[in-house]
Amino acid sequence: MATDTLWLETRTAEPDLATTMARIGHHARTAAAALSLASAEAKVAALREAARAVRARGSEILAANASDLEEAESDGVSAAMRDRLALDPKRLEAIAAGLEAIAELPDPVGRVLAAWTRPNGLAIERVAVPLGVIGIIYESRPNVTADAGGLALKSGNAAILRGGSESFYSSRALVGALEEGLRGAGLPEAAIQLVPTRDRAAVGLMLGMSEYIDVIVPRGGRSLTERVQRESRMPVIAHLEGLCHTYVDGAADPAKARAIVLNAKMRRVSICGATETLLVDRKAAPHLPAILADLRAADCELRGDDETRAIDPAVLPAGEEDWRTEYLDAILSIAIVDGVGGAIAHVNRWGSHHTDAIVTEDQQAADRFLREVDSAIVLVNASTQFADGGEFGMGAEIGISTQRLPPRGPVGAEQLTTYKYLVRGNGQVRP
Amino acid sequence: MATDTLWLETRTAEPDLATTMARIGHHARTAAAALSLASAEAKVAALREAARAVRARGSEILAANASDLEEAESDGVSAAMRDRLALDPKRLEAIAAGLEAIAELPDPVGRVLAAWTRPNGLAIERVAVPLGVIGIIYESRPNVTADAGGLALKSGNAAILRGGSESFYSSRALVGALEEGLRGAGLPEAAIQLVPTRDRAAVGLMLGMSEYIDVIVPRGGRSLTERVQRESRMPVIAHLEGLCHTYVDGAADPAKARAIVLNAKMRRVSICGATETLLVDRKAAPHLPAILADLRAADCELRGDDETRAIDPAVLPAGEEDWRTEYLDAILSIAIVDGVGGAIAHVNRWGSHHTDAIVTEDQQAADRFLREVDSAIVLVNASTQFADGGEFGMGAEIGISTQRLPPRGPVGAEQLTTYKYLVRGNGQVRP
Repeated sequence: MATDTLWLETRTAEPDLATTMARIGHHARTAAAALSLASAEAKVAALREAARAVRARGSEILAANASDLEEAESDGVSAAMRDRLALDPKRLEAIAAGLEAIAELPDPVGRVLAAWTRPNGLAIERVAVPLGVIGIIYESRPNVTADAGGLALKSGNAAILRGGSESFYSSRALVGALEEGLRGAGLPEAAIQLVPTRDRAAVGLMLGMSEYIDVIVPRGGRSLTERVQRESRMPVIAHLEGLCHTYVDGAADPAKARAIVLNAKMRRVSICGATETLLVDRKAAPHLPAILADLRAADCELRGDDETRAIDPAVLPAGEEDWRTEYLDAILSIAIVDGVGGAIAHVNRWGSHHTDAIVTEDQQAADRFLREVDSAIVLVNASTQFADGGEFGMGAEIGISTQRLPPRGPVGAEQLTTYKYLVRGNGQVRP
Repeated sequence: MATDTLWLETRTAEPDLATTMARIGHHARTAAAALSLASAEAKVAALREAARAVRARGSEILAANASDLEEAESDGVSAAMRDRLALDPKRLEAIAAGLEAIAELPDPVGRVLAAWTRPNGLAIERVAVPLGVIGIIYESRPNVTADAGGLALKSGNAAILRGGSESFYSSRALVGALEEGLRGAGLPEAAIQLVPTRDRAAVGLMLGMSEYIDVIVPRGGRSLTERVQRESRMPVIAHLEGLCHTYVDGAADPAKARAIVLNAKMRRVSICGATETLLVDRKAAPHLPAILADLRAADCELRGDDETRAIDPAVLPAGEEDWRTEYLDAILSIAIVDGVGGAIAHVNRWGSHHTDAIVTEDQQAADRFLREVDSAIVLVNASTQFADGGEFGMGAEIGISTQRLPPRGPVGAEQLTTYKYLVRGNGQVRP
């Protein structure tokens, strides 16, 4: 791998990290200018070629991953973390297929978002364009390297990736495949760069590089995101947390309620769309025992308010701390509320404005919940675990934004664009 | 004015500014929840009623403005600044009419921005919703108080206004009229609040109020904007500067070029859309003398590169400092460039990504300029002074965003909304 050796020589044999980071930034800025003008076909070719390279370099990538796993074990990293870190042929194939899926998405650049003509004859268009250079700071899982790099590329951006130090070798090997894709399509390799060091000081440097980076995307735990929000000189697309609720209304279909609550909590407990708090309309209390039995059978710990415990004394007590906790575990807090109004008040007070669901056959209650719950995603009669760019039909996602300003909710290729105004006249001057 | 007195008592007789600001924040948060659910009709009624109150309270507002002007004079504020600050019956009528124009805009809340159905039957809608609480920090001109408050209201947001200390009394009187409008429409008065002190510490406190404020909009000079971008804990919608260019291509119509350049530079020299640098294709050099004669006749100072000065030795010399300066004055820098490619390179290197124009009859040159110039607004054959929300048909504007993330370009009522996803199912769970 002559190229990778060169990469090591020119980008890691650097005495001064600040100089290295500035050079990476400069290369990214130049690459972004080229990427923003790249044809849809060239980007598709680069993604397909990258997928091919992931498969062709399979043994190299798995060997790199083995190095990461060895170091993780000797560093005392937990088995659960090591499982998240581990690649195998199946996971590698999923990474390659993910790149191909991104290739197949509609090109998000150049879409005419609006067009109108003014009385003076000026024709105005609002057209989607790339953001520029995206800095992505993430933790552990190596597949994020391919997803994030692929989405940035699809949307015509350059990416500077700062992966978790645990997945350093794996990410480096995957970026090698992405670079091969870019080269194969005649696009600049520097469109996707990995910060070539595990030195944590690189993160602080990235957060100050407003000259070179247009947007920062943190993807990881709360402490990473909060640090990025605090320190970044650039706008941030942040995913803070998913404290999601499912509310079972008095007019709920009991069978749907059982199926949805069980799925929303237990399908996967560690994802941001997992329900953390179950709200039950006092009128739906008769359905509660069956719902709790399902959850118990699935080994879910139950913590409820006094009314819940009056119905089922085996439920542990819950307090304010539970209403504000994203467990990401097989634990559910439960509160009895007074109808849809009580549910909305609880969600807006304690939730994280991520994803919340109502189960009801009452159209009015559903409409009120949709309107008044102040969250990025609000569902009726469906599991909160659908909070996912893939499930929304966006292809891969780089995360789910819990911010208010756009992009809000799942962030896919389309959400990694901005827009500009094109105005065509024939000599107009302003009176 | 019993209400205004109450307002003074409850909001300014505060020993502790931090407590005052927190209470304002809390009131704003509560008001935002109500505003986000307010009907389009109620918002229209509030804006019309506010316009009526501005007219009815005319003498009170002008008296407040006279107090501001007196203090400004004794503080040695320049005559130009005092002119910006001054209200008269005509300017007051323009403020009232501006509120009525905002009332007539289409309601930006509840628009369905996209809708699709997934193979599993989930029906997904992306719907426009208000941002929440907007903190607006601005300088001197009192009409911004009415524009900003009116736009925030139209888009269903609560606003916390921190006006320039020079316009404190004027702004307070105008906010009294806006509050009267809100009351008249049955909406919470606290939807538009003015920070009730000239203490500059209030700005610092606002920038840290992430619990209460969702977005900060600075509107003023570069030092204000840079401070806000540096210190704000919340996302910022910022207008940095307007270093705009007009490029006269070799294929320009000479008459259009003369009219556009003169208007782009001299119609008003102090607005952000005023052209600061004229770029002339070497092939268009024969048109330059007529263009420069027009500008001289309008008392514009001319600074050019060596090639320009070879054509017209009376032009003063220009250097790098000129390419990066937003004069906001009757001064123009001029560079001869090598075709549209040279123009694009100059604009992307030295410009502020705000607004840039090409004058040409060559469709290919126009398309290339539109595509490759990386600015919020790119025009063909029209004056850069059209960079304005009103001229775009957006009604009033709160500023022109030079950021990359949306909102980019003119920020009107529509741009003060975000969106959420509404998902309707019939019992779907995720496999």
